Amino acid sequence: MKRFKLTVAYDGANYCGWQIQPNGITIEEVLNKKLSGLLGDDIRVIGASRTDSGVHALGNVAVFDSDTTIPPERLAYALNRQLPKDIVVVKSEEVPMNWHPRYCNSVKTYEYHILNSKIPDPTRRLTRYFVSYKLELDKMKEAAACLVGEHDFASFCNVRTNVEDTVRTIYRLDIEESGDEVTIRIIGNGFLYNMVRIIVGTLLRVGRGFYTPDRVKNILEARDRQAAGVTAPPHGLVLVRIDYKS
Amino acid sequence: MKRFKLTVAYDGANYCGWQIQPNGITIEEVLNKKLSGLLGDDIRVIGASRTDSGVHALGNVAVFDSDTTIPPERLAYALNRQLPKDIVVVKSEEVPMNWHPRYCNSVKTYEYHILNSKIPDPTRRLTRYFVSYKLELDKMKEAAACLVGEHDFASFCNVRTNVEDTVRTIYRLDIEESGDEVTIRIIGNGFLYNMVRIIVGTLLRVGRGFYTPDRVKNILEARDRQAAGVTAPPHGLVLVRIDYKS
Repeated sequence: MKRFKLTVAYDGANYCGWQIQPNGITIEEVLNKKLSGLLGDDIRVIGASRTDSGVHALGNVAVFDSDTTIPPERLAYALNRQLPKDIVVVKSEEVPMNWHPRYCNSVKTYEYHILNSKIPDPTRRLTRYFVSYKLELDKMKEAAACLVGEHDFASFCNVRTNVEDTVRTIYRLDIEESGDEVTIRIIGNGFLYNMVRIIVGTLLRVGRGFYTPDRVKNILEARDRQAAGVTAPPHGLVLVRIDYKS
Repeated sequence: MKRFKLTVAYDGANYCGWQIQPNGITIEEVLNKKLSGLLGDDIRVIGASRTDSGVHALGNVAVFDSDTTIPPERLAYALNRQLPKDIVVVKSEEVPMNWHPRYCNSVKTYEYHILNSKIPDPTRRLTRYFVSYKLELDKMKEAAACLVGEHDFASFCNVRTNVEDTVRTIYRLDIEESGDEVTIRIIGNGFLYNMVRIIVGTLLRVGRGFYTPDRVKNILEARDRQAAGVTAPPHGLVLVRIDYKS
């Protein structure tokens, strides 16, 4: 038996997220089905990040075990011939049997893409959050700086499962403008449920002038989801990459 | 009776192009249906550019006649509430009854978007042509310069209808690189059938080293479609805007 690691990119628009669920088709389900067909066995992948419905990925990570003799690096090619065009395995490799995508130390990079324009663009409607009001980027950057470092992010977590420990570290939180787009890039050692999208929703309130940058410090200290802004919609979010330390 | 001009943006991925045809749903058909429903009359739009299946637009133009009392600038808003999300009317205005989107002097701007990377990106698969080989941009720019100006573009026209006059003027042909994307922007006073996509297909041959930049001059002089490169696929193409001189 060998363990294989897949780096997976997908357009999340047509999927009910990563994790298998009864109400619709998911990335995990498609990967399981296509891998099982390809390798003639009942394959179940384990994903690093269970992205929500509509969220995209350029580098989510999954592992599975198999005794296939297909060379590890060829698996991506064979699998991509079977997969729908909105899911692409960008890399396949062998890892040690004890390697687990969620238990290893990792650094995750997310990007949230905003189309900041008076005019909507239907060609970007599934990958950019359309914001027609003017954004005060300097204030958003000031607020973002408060969130960098090790903090208890309980205010930035939608309650869904029991999370004992809501302390996480954000290494970088950059806001960049290019043409009519604003990109919020967040790099951290782990993220609570909806954490990136609540951070973005909160920073957008600052950008619109509803919150002062200082208020974000108070929101963090409140450790209360009610203190923060709304959860930004999923389609602007991309899981860009996961880097493993070990 | 009044004449109304619509500026229309759309994601062409799910449409069989602009012009009504028996084999699938088109932009023209959807606009006619929604306008007819909204205005309680049998409305038929006339489009400026009959874009192909899969081609996108940020600023195609259409006109129609109606005796509606809805203020011209409010039509866009009312129509967008009815339209599917991949079609957006970005502007509506009244024009003189003799104004025609195809008979007026106009300058059209097209962009062709290329993802030039080793790794495909499923989130951009419907709006970028994925080219994994290295492109020699300097040579492409040299070749592009040969095409600027007034020329007989017969070599860059796929035969479909009788075209008496294949002389057109390209005002600008710019090639820009940004990150992993290459954008070819073409501004001209009119374009033959598939002209932009054949120009792009030909420039890509230069970029790959199959054609010298000089060969593009010979292709132009040949006035023969067989001389030029293949037609680049539709999904990289966007009709950006149409500016009317009068």
